[in-house]
Amino acid sequence: MRAGPSQEDIRRHNLGALLRHVHLGGPISRAELTSKMGLNRSTIMALTSDLTAAGLVREELPRETGRAWPSLVVRPESSRVYVFAFDVGPDRIAAARVGLGGVILDRREAARDRDRFDLDELTGTLAGFARQMRRKTRNDTVCVGAAAAVSGGVRKADGVVSFGPNLQAEEVPFGEELARRLGLGLPVSVGNDANLAALAEHSRGVGVAVRDLIYLHGDVGIGGGIISGGHLIGGHDGYGGEIGHMVVNPGGRACGCGSHGCLEAEVGERTLLESAGRVADGRRGRDAVREVVEAADRGDIVAQEALSRVGDWLGLGVANLVNIFNPELVIFGGILREIYLGSAAQVRSQLALHAMAHQRERVRLRTSALGDSAPLVGAAELAFAHVLSDPLEVLARANG
Amino acid sequence: MRAGPSQEDIRRHNLGALLRHVHLGGPISRAELTSKMGLNRSTIMALTSDLTAAGLVREELPRETGRAWPSLVVRPESSRVYVFAFDVGPDRIAAARVGLGGVILDRREAARDRDRFDLDELTGTLAGFARQMRRKTRNDTVCVGAAAAVSGGVRKADGVVSFGPNLQAEEVPFGEELARRLGLGLPVSVGNDANLAALAEHSRGVGVAVRDLIYLHGDVGIGGGIISGGHLIGGHDGYGGEIGHMVVNPGGRACGCGSHGCLEAEVGERTLLESAGRVADGRRGRDAVREVVEAADRGDIVAQEALSRVGDWLGLGVANLVNIFNPELVIFGGILREIYLGSAAQVRSQLALHAMAHQRERVRLRTSALGDSAPLVGAAELAFAHVLSDPLEVLARANG
Repeated sequence: MRAGPSQEDIRRHNLGALLRHVHLGGPISRAELTSKMGLNRSTIMALTSDLTAAGLVREELPRETGRAWPSLVVRPESSRVYVFAFDVGPDRIAAARVGLGGVILDRREAARDRDRFDLDELTGTLAGFARQMRRKTRNDTVCVGAAAAVSGGVRKADGVVSFGPNLQAEEVPFGEELARRLGLGLPVSVGNDANLAALAEHSRGVGVAVRDLIYLHGDVGIGGGIISGGHLIGGHDGYGGEIGHMVVNPGGRACGCGSHGCLEAEVGERTLLESAGRVADGRRGRDAVREVVEAADRGDIVAQEALSRVGDWLGLGVANLVNIFNPELVIFGGILREIYLGSAAQVRSQLALHAMAHQRERVRLRTSALGDSAPLVGAAELAFAHVLSDPLEVLARANG
Repeated sequence: MRAGPSQEDIRRHNLGALLRHVHLGGPISRAELTSKMGLNRSTIMALTSDLTAAGLVREELPRETGRAWPSLVVRPESSRVYVFAFDVGPDRIAAARVGLGGVILDRREAARDRDRFDLDELTGTLAGFARQMRRKTRNDTVCVGAAAAVSGGVRKADGVVSFGPNLQAEEVPFGEELARRLGLGLPVSVGNDANLAALAEHSRGVGVAVRDLIYLHGDVGIGGGIISGGHLIGGHDGYGGEIGHMVVNPGGRACGCGSHGCLEAEVGERTLLESAGRVADGRRGRDAVREVVEAADRGDIVAQEALSRVGDWLGLGVANLVNIFNPELVIFGGILREIYLGSAAQVRSQLALHAMAHQRERVRLRTSALGDSAPLVGAAELAFAHVLSDPLEVLARANG
C-alpha cells in the first residue's frame, strides 16, 4: 500500500519492461513495442535510444520489407551482455555463459561424486570453468550477473543452502563462496534447481504464457517448482515446492527425510532401480534410469512392473497437486521425463481416479522442453533479473 | 510487461491505497499516512480531501493530544458506505450489511436443508434479508457492492458455481440470479467460501501481515484457501485450494468426489460422526461435531478414539501442505477449529513425523480468529475490492 511511483520510477519500469520484451521474445519492431507496451512512438524511441546507448540492445532495419518506412527492429546485444549460470546436481555440475536474450554462448560440465560435498573443490571447478569461458570473450563484452541452481533448499533470508541431502550439503554459504572464487565483484544469487527449472520452462520452455503450472523435477530425489497466477511459490523461508516430500503412501518406503511413503521414496531413482532389480550391478544416475525405461519398452517384464508401480504413485501425486492447485499444465523434467514417458498410461489412469473432474478436464501433461538445461536456463534468468529491473544502473555498475 | 502508469492512474492508485489503509487499519492520522505511504503532506491532504468530498472518509481532530497542531485523523465512513455480504453453506445461509472499515452493521441468518438446492428459494430468502436490512438504514447511506461466499467451486471465467456437492449445486449462475433478486443494479461477485475465509483471516483475522498461510475450512466437506507471497492461489479456472481432495490414505474411505482416502473422506463430519458411533441418532452438522469433541473431553473413549484417528489424518494432510508450501501459518476454521482443538496432539505428532525439519520449525498452527463469520467477512472484502481499486468512480456510479 505504498504510494504510486515517481516519474523516475516510471522511466526505470518502462526501460525494464522494454528490455524484458526483447530479452524474452527476441527481436521485435518498434511498431510492435508501441502496441504491446501501450506507449506512443516517441516514448518507445526515447527508451530504445537509452538502451542502445547503454549497449544493451541495437536497432537494425528489418531484413525484408515492402514498406517505404519500415519500423526498426530492436535486438538484444546477446554477444556483448552476458551472465554466468551454474547448476549443481547430485551427479553433475555445469557452468554456462548466457547472453542477453537467453542464448547459451558457451558451456562446460563435469561429473561429481554424489556421496560427498567439498565446497572448495566444487566452487574451484565452477570458477575455473567461468575463467576458461571468459578468456574466450571479446574485450567489449560485459558480465552483468551470476546465479546458481542447487539441488537443495535455499534459505530466502541469506541465500544459504540450508539442506541438500542428495548433495550431502548442509548450511553451506555456496553463493558467497562461489562469488569469492569468481572474483568478478558480482554477487552470486542461488536458487533451488527445480524452482529455477520451473521459471525457465515458464519463460522459455513449454510453459510460456501459462500462468498456473507445476514442474516436477526428478534427479536422485524429486523436487518441484510451482507457478500460480504467474508467481513462483517461494514459501515463507524459500523452501516452497518440496513436493517430493508429500506423503502419497502412508507407511510406505522409508525416505531420506525421515518420513515414509513420500513421493520421492515411491518414485525416485533408488526405488525404480531396486524394483527393477538393478541395484546389485552398482549402476545409478540418469543413464541407469533410462536403461530401465528402455528395457520396459523392449518387453522386460520386471522393468515394466517397476515402471508401472512407480507410475501409479507418480499419478497419485500429480492428482493431489492438480486438486490443490488447479494448474493448466504439469511438466515432467529431469529423470521424471523418462519415467513419465514410460508410464504415461498409469499416470493418466490415477489422474482419472483421483483428480476432480473440473480440474482434470483442463490440465495438460507435458515433458520439459529445455531438458537437462532447464535449471541452468533458470539460473541465467535469475542472474538477469536485476538487469531487467533497472537496466541502466546495472550496466553502469558493470562497466564502471 | 505493459508500460508504466499515467498521472491519472497514479492518482487512482494513491486514492485506493489511502482508502485501503483506512479500511483495513482503521482510523489513522494524516501524519501516519504520510510516513506509511511515502508521500508528502500536501499530497496526502489532497487525497483525503477528495475521499472526504466523495463521502468515503471523514477527518476529525484526535480525541486527546498534547500538541498545539495535532494531525487530523482519517476515519472510514462506516455507517454511510456499505456492501452486502452473503454466505451459503450446506446447513446455513447468512447475509450481512458490512460498512467500510469491515464493520458488520447488521446480520440475518437461516438454516437450510443440505439435501436439496433450490435457487429461487435461496436467492429469494437472501434478497429478503437484504431488503429488511436496507429498510433500517438512513437515507444518506449508499450500497457500493455485493458478494457471496459459496461452499463450492466457482469458475473464474463467469462466476458460475460449477460444482458444490455439499450444497447439491451444479452449474448454477448464483451471482447473476441473486443480483436480479436484489434489484440494486449491482453485480454480485461470487467466491469459494474457504478461499474467501482465507482472505478474511489474512485481512482482519489471525493472518494479518502473514504473506504465506494455509486456511483449512471444515463444514460438511473440507475446503481450503492458500495465500502464497500475499496472493491467493486461485488456479487456472478458479478452483485452487481444494485440499479436501488430496488423497492422504490411498484405498481409504470412499469420498463424495468418487475417489478414496481424500482428506475430506478421512477427516470430514460424516467420518467423525460414524467413527464415534453417532450416525444412528440422526444428528449431524456443527453441533453434532462439537458434541463429539466435548464427549472426548469428558472421557468418552469411543469419541476419543474417533477424534484421535481423525487428528492423525488431519496431521498428515497438514504435513503435506507444509512441505509443499512452506507456510508461516496454518489456520483451522469451521468445524476443523473444534476438531483441531480436540486433536492437537495427534496433528502435531504427525507433523513431527512427516514435515521436513526446516519447514516444520517455523510454522505456527492456529484456530480461526473470525470463526463462523470468516466467509462472510471475506465476501465483504470481495465486494469492497473494486471500491478500493477506484474509489471515486465507484462512488459516483453508486450515487447515480
